[in-house]
Amino acid sequence: MEVPQKVRGTQDWFGEQQRYYTFIKKVSRHIFRHFGFTRISTPIMEMRDLIVRSVGEHTDVVSKELYEFKDKKGRDLVLKPESTAGVMRSYLENFQNDPQPVYLFYIEPHFRYDRPQKGRYRQFHQLGAEIIGERDPVLDAENIHMAVKILQDCGVGEKFTLKINTLGNTKEREAYIAELQAFFRGKSHLLDEIDQARVEHNPLRLLDSKNPDVREILPYAPKLRDFFKKDSNEYYESVKSYLDLLGIKYEEDPTLVRGLDYYCDVVFECVDNSGRTQDAYCGGGRYDGLATSLGSKNPVPAVGFALGVERLIDSMVESGLYIINKDTIDLYFIQVGEEAKRIALPISVQAREMGLNVLASFGSPSMKTQLKKANQLKAKYVAIIGIMEARRGVCQLKNMEKGVQQEIKISELLDHMVEIVGEKNLDFYDPKKELLQGKKPEPIDPSAK
Amino acid sequence: MEVPQKVRGTQDWFGEQQRYYTFIKKVSRHIFRHFGFTRISTPIMEMRDLIVRSVGEHTDVVSKELYEFKDKKGRDLVLKPESTAGVMRSYLENFQNDPQPVYLFYIEPHFRYDRPQKGRYRQFHQLGAEIIGERDPVLDAENIHMAVKILQDCGVGEKFTLKINTLGNTKEREAYIAELQAFFRGKSHLLDEIDQARVEHNPLRLLDSKNPDVREILPYAPKLRDFFKKDSNEYYESVKSYLDLLGIKYEEDPTLVRGLDYYCDVVFECVDNSGRTQDAYCGGGRYDGLATSLGSKNPVPAVGFALGVERLIDSMVESGLYIINKDTIDLYFIQVGEEAKRIALPISVQAREMGLNVLASFGSPSMKTQLKKANQLKAKYVAIIGIMEARRGVCQLKNMEKGVQQEIKISELLDHMVEIVGEKNLDFYDPKKELLQGKKPEPIDPSAK
Repeated sequence: MEVPQKVRGTQDWFGEQQRYYTFIKKVSRHIFRHFGFTRISTPIMEMRDLIVRSVGEHTDVVSKELYEFKDKKGRDLVLKPESTAGVMRSYLENFQNDPQPVYLFYIEPHFRYDRPQKGRYRQFHQLGAEIIGERDPVLDAENIHMAVKILQDCGVGEKFTLKINTLGNTKEREAYIAELQAFFRGKSHLLDEIDQARVEHNPLRLLDSKNPDVREILPYAPKLRDFFKKDSNEYYESVKSYLDLLGIKYEEDPTLVRGLDYYCDVVFECVDNSGRTQDAYCGGGRYDGLATSLGSKNPVPAVGFALGVERLIDSMVESGLYIINKDTIDLYFIQVGEEAKRIALPISVQAREMGLNVLASFGSPSMKTQLKKANQLKAKYVAIIGIMEARRGVCQLKNMEKGVQQEIKISELLDHMVEIVGEKNLDFYDPKKELLQGKKPEPIDPSAK
Repeated sequence: MEVPQKVRGTQDWFGEQQRYYTFIKKVSRHIFRHFGFTRISTPIMEMRDLIVRSVGEHTDVVSKELYEFKDKKGRDLVLKPESTAGVMRSYLENFQNDPQPVYLFYIEPHFRYDRPQKGRYRQFHQLGAEIIGERDPVLDAENIHMAVKILQDCGVGEKFTLKINTLGNTKEREAYIAELQAFFRGKSHLLDEIDQARVEHNPLRLLDSKNPDVREILPYAPKLRDFFKKDSNEYYESVKSYLDLLGIKYEEDPTLVRGLDYYCDVVFECVDNSGRTQDAYCGGGRYDGLATSLGSKNPVPAVGFALGVERLIDSMVESGLYIINKDTIDLYFIQVGEEAKRIALPISVQAREMGLNVLASFGSPSMKTQLKKANQLKAKYVAIIGIMEARRGVCQLKNMEKGVQQEIKISELLDHMVEIVGEKNLDFYDPKKELLQGKKPEPIDPSAK
């Protein structure tokens, strides 16, 4: 009997990879908080209908890549392939009476039944923002700014190009799509099977078709821009002027349409400069039509983005960027004999209360094994308590870097260690400072109930 | 058409509830780091076999509460109902050559198809620890200490009682279970259907049966302790002596068996003092038999616990404990006219770079609406830039608490705000301090690859 393996296309995150993830979460939490966003976590499972209505039945996401199943009552559920639909669902239920717009962010696992390959997993992680409830080009610019700033603060600011485009409003898009379909239906002998299906179900995707025949006739196809009325053009120009004001560089790319159906107006992607055909770091745009697609009576303007965590980690690794490991061990207790163990246990607890990172080598009998562990764990100091030391109330304190050793009274060990590590380097955190006992404070953030 | 609702038994987390969750994660991350633990995240999906082998086919978790489905290749997958099986799977694949024991912690969503009720959700969250690779009673005591300390630091230290028990080693348990089954088979006329099934599949669960007839005859049933050999008793006594040494109070409860099959030796739970029949805050114990149940050739000693986040939040709320909201807005920009907006946008970005929490009221046209929002968001200061102010390069800075207002040059606004907020209260974080450019450092934690 073999041990069951992890599910194909999923990963265990620990050690170095976990450190990247922790760093990226920390950076983005900080930026989001600064910009007035609060966090939302929507469930892993959503009703299938919600996802179909938001992403569209004829997209790859729904037709090929959805993890779907029935629960015991026969309801059609899915593992969410993205979080925007869930956040909008929650907005409609919980946030409509808050000051608008509401600024929300998320850091969530998502699921797609895709062919696993480098950087592509069946459980993958995205962080993202949604600004919901107002339509203003300055919000589009802020949304893009947020995505760009996270990439910059994660050290890959030089590795991507921001591309933007506008898709016009829903009416303009519909008029354009009808003409685009008419154009390609007349040339269906040039299209492969996939592109023929796209003509009917997802014609905008033809604009980034990989088929050389399609690429050749594309210059003669109708142009979306020609269908824009004054408002759409002005909105786009306004977003660009705010980006200029923020000093954010961008390239305009009329072929940029994004994979998902719910976008309108301004869309963007941050794509890798290396030119390799890889996923974008992040992308997003405006999706004023999503709420009504989901079934809302009133339209709700909204803009957002999503950023791929695995993609970003890969890029940081390629750039030679590493996260400094702060899980260093200041002091490592090695003890021989029960008496020594009974000394090491409470004193290691006391050391932690004082802000020292301490590990005691419990479970291993021999001094040699314990020393080897201290080395592997790169402990800075080792306190050795043998049978004789235990009786005399002392330990041998060894500086592992310099290899020097001194005898020290156990009662003086911790003060001595605090001195060595330095007060300001202590890892100290007082949860009581964040706890309030008594009367419930008034809600002071937009999402508090 | 109605908007699809969230899946029954799941929750959106935002606002106040999200703040509790953030606080609990922060407290536990800190404690775990101090005790030398590193984080692991195992996938949401696992192979059904893995869960069945660990939890047992005849448990409620597997027979009634599992979210299970086939992927497109026909593999049997489940949404994980707990994380211990996944962590052990990952240990067997990744950690066997690291210094032992390995100290791992997780904070993860879990899934059970249970009847939704207060404090019980179909997607629920647990944090937990696993110490894998050594068998030593001091590790059992450390494991319990960790759980107790997290509850204490979350402010509910007075609300629970730690109960402990020992289940003996696997051999002793098997001998006892055979006798227990014989005893109850002779009294099956007293048992209801559920308890009759338990006799065959999960006889230890009879020890905490709610059936009054069973409770009446329990005193005459064989006692597990009578089957213990010297080793098991010594192990248990040793764990208790370490708990005494750590000053951790406990009650011994011979009926404590835990719901899951994989426990052996010392088990524990922290139960609510109020006596209401609610879930325990947390529980755990030793599970030296798990690795071989999963299919490992070699046994792997291990001890761990899991703590229910929803349960803990409920208890904090009941105790009148609230989390101080640090997402306060220092400065809120109100602007009228395009010119004012173009001033507010870059200066709000600059303010954030300086560590101020700033929000600009984009998207709302009228001054009245904007002021109302500033009030709702409890902004400390408001900077009003009207058409005239924009031309003159000034703003009206209003102290929202005192209601006083002064005109100030926009070029001096931020320095002025830093002075008011105070250097030490600035929300500043420099990601570059955690990033290392260049050569990959040697792995310095046990789980790094």
